[in-house]
Amino acid sequence: MKFVLSLAILCGVCLGQSADDASPATSNVMGAQYPRITSDLRAVFRLRAPDAQKVEVNVGGAKYEMTKDADGFWAATSAPLVPGFHYYAISVDGVSINDPGSETYFGVGREYSGIEVPEKGADFYFPKDVPHGDVREHWYYSKVTGSWRRCYVYTPPGYDNSPKTRYPVLYLQHGAGEDERGWIAQGHANFILDNLIGQGKAKPMIIVMDHGYAFRSGETVQQPFASPAPVSSPLTGGTAAPSAAPRPPSNPFTTATFEEVMVSEVIPMIDATYRTIPDRDHRAMAGLSMGGMQTFQITLHHLDTFSYIGGFSGAGGGFGNTPFDVHTAFNGVLNDSAAFNKRVKLVWLGIGTAEPERMYKSVHSFHEALEKAGIATVYYESPGTAHEWQTWRRDLNEFAPRLFQ
Amino acid sequence: MKFVLSLAILCGVCLGQSADDASPATSNVMGAQYPRITSDLRAVFRLRAPDAQKVEVNVGGAKYEMTKDADGFWAATSAPLVPGFHYYAISVDGVSINDPGSETYFGVGREYSGIEVPEKGADFYFPKDVPHGDVREHWYYSKVTGSWRRCYVYTPPGYDNSPKTRYPVLYLQHGAGEDERGWIAQGHANFILDNLIGQGKAKPMIIVMDHGYAFRSGETVQQPFASPAPVSSPLTGGTAAPSAAPRPPSNPFTTATFEEVMVSEVIPMIDATYRTIPDRDHRAMAGLSMGGMQTFQITLHHLDTFSYIGGFSGAGGGFGNTPFDVHTAFNGVLNDSAAFNKRVKLVWLGIGTAEPERMYKSVHSFHEALEKAGIATVYYESPGTAHEWQTWRRDLNEFAPRLFQ
Repeated sequence: MKFVLSLAILCGVCLGQSADDASPATSNVMGAQYPRITSDLRAVFRLRAPDAQKVEVNVGGAKYEMTKDADGFWAATSAPLVPGFHYYAISVDGVSINDPGSETYFGVGREYSGIEVPEKGADFYFPKDVPHGDVREHWYYSKVTGSWRRCYVYTPPGYDNSPKTRYPVLYLQHGAGEDERGWIAQGHANFILDNLIGQGKAKPMIIVMDHGYAFRSGETVQQPFASPAPVSSPLTGGTAAPSAAPRPPSNPFTTATFEEVMVSEVIPMIDATYRTIPDRDHRAMAGLSMGGMQTFQITLHHLDTFSYIGGFSGAGGGFGNTPFDVHTAFNGVLNDSAAFNKRVKLVWLGIGTAEPERMYKSVHSFHEALEKAGIATVYYESPGTAHEWQTWRRDLNEFAPRLFQ
Repeated sequence: MKFVLSLAILCGVCLGQSADDASPATSNVMGAQYPRITSDLRAVFRLRAPDAQKVEVNVGGAKYEMTKDADGFWAATSAPLVPGFHYYAISVDGVSINDPGSETYFGVGREYSGIEVPEKGADFYFPKDVPHGDVREHWYYSKVTGSWRRCYVYTPPGYDNSPKTRYPVLYLQHGAGEDERGWIAQGHANFILDNLIGQGKAKPMIIVMDHGYAFRSGETVQQPFASPAPVSSPLTGGTAAPSAAPRPPSNPFTTATFEEVMVSEVIPMIDATYRTIPDRDHRAMAGLSMGGMQTFQITLHHLDTFSYIGGFSGAGGGFGNTPFDVHTAFNGVLNDSAAFNKRVKLVWLGIGTAEPERMYKSVHSFHEALEKAGIATVYYESPGTAHEWQTWRRDLNEFAPRLFQ
């Protein structure tokens, strides 16, 4: 197993930094004292492994050797970390493991440790004293895939007490390597919407977070993401594995079959089960990374179904070097910009300024191509954040207020 | 770290057993080919760790040395396992780790690997072609603890389409070391109820699964369960760590403060938020292990609030050797058996026949003490299962049909 190392910060236990001002990370399991976050946003890690020969922690794009004390505890303190949520892993004699002090979060096709680094003055993604919606685990049977599938459905505050009220719906997709749990567990989408709705900044809406993988009955299920160890992800330009987990889909079936599940099964099921306003004017789709690409493919193939479109660090141009031709792409739906702008109420694109160049450029150049073609867009850059959840939390916080107004 | 080893089954890779007839465990992450379950219910484990010196897997009460192939993959096949859900851990050079092929399940105060071993002919805890309820993640602020808390709420099939209908409520608690996620993630309580309700065997009901730990503002939060390594649990008699995870509460505040949160905050909040029938005739409480003890403490202190009581592998007698005196316990509420039997509609006790003797005896002798005192009970033994989820799934499947009839 190799980590690609971009920063030469290998300080082991940084002796100049005391852990005395540190607090347990909010991403820890209950009661766990480690990992801790210092006031200057370093992470302090600690693991008991008396018989191990070499222990390292990989977080925030760097690898830190841990050092052992007489009781068999290994420890390391990181450099100051960018605020937000970072996947991390500890390597024990070459095997990447979860930190028992951390909750686990599904990323890179497996359960991973994660650490929440607070951002000064930013609490839009934490629970506050506002009415709260519920997040529902909802199971449905897909005839397309021949399997039971799980989605999560956020119903906004007031949903249960207003049995006559119907709501617009945002379909919100995770990225590659993550799954339908990501927008709640890592992203805190429920708290973001609770806070926006509580402040009157966003309309009350239902959010549906589906499982973004679909394989037809009989298709061999691929495992495009899982790896026994954190990978030096091609998505991140090799800079930050495992802190930036998602990788692009490697399976051509992923979106085509998912598109069918979404349009022919999920949307009718949601409209039949929840009090939606079941028309295109009240239906949005957005997604991050792979989910952004899926969003553009699905919405631009089904403009009779959707009128709001969002791509967070992933959009209609993919991440490859294939030139994007606005005239031929998506069956030419972008050709008549006046008609498109009239029909589609929002095309929203977001990217983090610290994302790998390949990804930054792909979204940026897709945005330029749309603008050049006369397609109205809203473009947002998240300052200082990478291909990670802080970017996507900010995206959602910027995007949701523009929906259904 | 030491595992207590009760069985001398250390077969490494059992050469007599081919993995050819094996299928990936349903508890795996999507696409993971290992662990696998053979047709005779052995588990086949595989982990890549080319640089490790010693790798073992601990499952079902035994430890198996894994052997390495030329590509650095370690493998082992277990003896046939008891059907049901078992926590397991892989030890790499003495450090207990999660298997990247497994989903993680919160037990023993941390996230753990788990393996689902199918039971021939038993599918009452899997999704079937019946109407499904939703499981809602619901957040509420507790003034008692000064913190945001999470509970899960199962609303039965039809709840959303019958806005005038009100429902009885079962409060259902997890055991020590687990949390409010356990009854869904490990227990499949939602599928059990969907199936019972779909067959007309149980009344449609709401189930509330709360976080069974509560510490008053300012109290030091204890970490009674978390351990950097699987423990040889006192609860299991040292036979089966980590397959049997829960441990009894070590903190005297746990139940007293939780009782206050449950009675003064959770129940009023649930009655105000969901369409409950808010009276004692339509309110039940049950729990497993620590949750069973909490249930008896809370319900017997509040018979004005509850009329159905269930203890699954844990009840009113605790697990200790303190003699249980039916005359003095719970403020003497059991003294007048005729009055008690008239007032309380159900006292239900369950235990697995393969549970550690100390636990089996404690529930069994509590049952005998109640019967001797003239308290009507229903007593159930789960054949062949230990202090594990298959026992508690069966308990719920037996218990729920007796509620609210």
